[in-house]
Amino acid sequence: VRIEAVFVGSELLEGRLNTHAVELARRLAPLGLTLSRHVTVGDEEADIAAAVRQALEGSKAVLVLGGLGPTFDDLSREGVARALRRRLRFEPKLFEEIRLKFARRRLPMPPGNRRQAFVVEGGAAIRNHHGSAPGMRVDAGRGRRVYLLPGPEHEMIPMFEGRVLPELKKLARGGPLTRVEFHCAGIMESEADRRLRPILARYPKARFTILAGEAVVSFYATALRAADLKGLARRVRERLAGYIFAEGPGSLSAAVGKLLKKKKATLSVAESCTGGLLAKRLTDVPGSSDYFVGGLVGYANRLKTAELGVSPALLKKEGAVSPGCAEAMARGARRRYRADWAVSTTGIAGPGGGSKGKPVGTVYVGLANSAGTQVRHLSLTGDRDEVRRKAVNAALFWLWESLDYCRR
Amino acid sequence: VRIEAVFVGSELLEGRLNTHAVELARRLAPLGLTLSRHVTVGDEEADIAAAVRQALEGSKAVLVLGGLGPTFDDLSREGVARALRRRLRFEPKLFEEIRLKFARRRLPMPPGNRRQAFVVEGGAAIRNHHGSAPGMRVDAGRGRRVYLLPGPEHEMIPMFEGRVLPELKKLARGGPLTRVEFHCAGIMESEADRRLRPILARYPKARFTILAGEAVVSFYATALRAADLKGLARRVRERLAGYIFAEGPGSLSAAVGKLLKKKKATLSVAESCTGGLLAKRLTDVPGSSDYFVGGLVGYANRLKTAELGVSPALLKKEGAVSPGCAEAMARGARRRYRADWAVSTTGIAGPGGGSKGKPVGTVYVGLANSAGTQVRHLSLTGDRDEVRRKAVNAALFWLWESLDYCRR
Repeated sequence: VRIEAVFVGSELLEGRLNTHAVELARRLAPLGLTLSRHVTVGDEEADIAAAVRQALEGSKAVLVLGGLGPTFDDLSREGVARALRRRLRFEPKLFEEIRLKFARRRLPMPPGNRRQAFVVEGGAAIRNHHGSAPGMRVDAGRGRRVYLLPGPEHEMIPMFEGRVLPELKKLARGGPLTRVEFHCAGIMESEADRRLRPILARYPKARFTILAGEAVVSFYATALRAADLKGLARRVRERLAGYIFAEGPGSLSAAVGKLLKKKKATLSVAESCTGGLLAKRLTDVPGSSDYFVGGLVGYANRLKTAELGVSPALLKKEGAVSPGCAEAMARGARRRYRADWAVSTTGIAGPGGGSKGKPVGTVYVGLANSAGTQVRHLSLTGDRDEVRRKAVNAALFWLWESLDYCRR
Repeated sequence: VRIEAVFVGSELLEGRLNTHAVELARRLAPLGLTLSRHVTVGDEEADIAAAVRQALEGSKAVLVLGGLGPTFDDLSREGVARALRRRLRFEPKLFEEIRLKFARRRLPMPPGNRRQAFVVEGGAAIRNHHGSAPGMRVDAGRGRRVYLLPGPEHEMIPMFEGRVLPELKKLARGGPLTRVEFHCAGIMESEADRRLRPILARYPKARFTILAGEAVVSFYATALRAADLKGLARRVRERLAGYIFAEGPGSLSAAVGKLLKKKKATLSVAESCTGGLLAKRLTDVPGSSDYFVGGLVGYANRLKTAELGVSPALLKKEGAVSPGCAEAMARGARRRYRADWAVSTTGIAGPGGGSKGKPVGTVYVGLANSAGTQVRHLSLTGDRDEVRRKAVNAALFWLWESLDYCRR
């Protein structure tokens, strides 16, 4: 079953984040449904009409969100009528309901709100319990339906859940969707693809996606029935052994946290070039205070010396961007903040500060635990932001690898 | 000039938030451009082709984002070729470049990456400096162009800024645009709109956008000739006095940095609930080591006590989420790390840890300088990530306000 959505609102084209698409997807997924596509248009009647017309080609249901307000630039009613070549009909009863809403709140009704009492021919209003704009359900012929829903989330969602979802559920007929989800690190997207491809052919009724995030490769499979994915998780586990840090939703920092918790171990950081980003990523995880004690953002060299015990002689001789400094920072943070593990970063994020021997992108990561302290050298590309993000990803990956090693 | 975008990726239909639309809008706005509409489709060749075909009706430029990877579900090349009824042509030189990228990193090239060496007839590859997938620029006839850009943001944005924006700029009007750009904090979008509206009517040849970002409201005006914006900057400065932290491109952290530099003052932090994000935002700014010395991520209470001198009695009586703790943290960080200014954060970011008296979203921010230490109480809404971001924005805004105060 194809379902499409048309999001109406110039603000969505001018930089306002569209969270409606996420909210709809989240509510459709348990029914085994997804939007087949969605379109975002501005407050232009012709654009709305064209989008609705295109969406109706091949779709059973079209959701039109937004553009139902009382002002001159709320044109979804007109756009849908034009797409279907129908008229708008004034509904005195609906008008009375809107008028009453204002009266109950002892507010004068602005003249614009009269527009909300018009309904597309062949359609029926949907009552809005959380705002003034009624929704609409329009029969578009050949079993197709157009639903008009108000833009504000607290009005849209109850209407979608109460009046639209039950009808879509009937349309769908299928059972709930089953899915398999894996997140990997230390492997490239193309390599994961090469390893998985041979087994995917065994699952003709499943849908697959491989997604490369930053330093992370994710694999998703969905199907209507659990039987359609039988044995898939086991096969993926075999093929990607050593790279999978999460089955089901999860991040690299959460995976690190899980391993630390299991070992009842604590973690500290000492950051120079990443300037707090490593700690930020670690504390993105709810409950991270169980294992993450904190650490130092040691931007100035005098903090590296005073707080972590990095020797001034070393700083003078090798500089702050050196394996020796990374090592001393990690060792110092582990001792000073009394943690079982510690990670340090020092490097040149750019744009300035690079030299021939130590170009921008040179980063050292230190890792300390009871067995000692090790240092890795990274040569990263990209701008300041990218170098910092890549350094943090590398540090988290190394930490995960090291924590995970004992399990293998 | 109509410009449309086609976002390709099943994950965007399955609940992944699309931030690309926002990033594009933000970069188009200063040129006086917006997307006329955008479409999101899954990883299906037919859907991509249909969307591109529809987008080309009436548009001068179509951006296709995503679907350029090496895997079986990366089908944007095929979709665009089908929309234009053209073939894909193998480019040995491009293949060699991709092969070299792997060779340089001493990795074997998976066979799938060969697909990335195909270019639509009438098109040319765009080099990708941040990943393996080349982009593409395709002449679609009648002065229309299709740009294919890779999905990952850190690959897409440099390519968009470097290769696409300059061409769109030319398409837009030909002449160089003159512009006025202001960034404000501490004011709501609707209030900024109300204040600016009366003066905008004086500039009939200019285009205006007011964009609400997180904790920031930005105002852009563009016109063909400088005369079309005469006196506008002065009028905006008057109307938004006290809220403007940057004229021209700029962030709140950069504005804070500028003021600190001017005063030759240094800054330190002590973060609990924001877990490093405040330091990260401060060090996003190149050259921040001139004024930012670093600080503590004091997640565990024992670090707050040992490093910052927060009294155990206070922690026991009032808890770590208290005005007293925020005050002691800021004072302690300023003293310990020998900085002129210090900012602290402590709060409950959630999802757990809330109580009736201190619900999730309760945050205290401390600000210390030579005049003493003050604390602000925040009641923030949203999930963990949002609470943390809002806390950091509030802290930066307060810091900027306080630093800026002396100038007025």
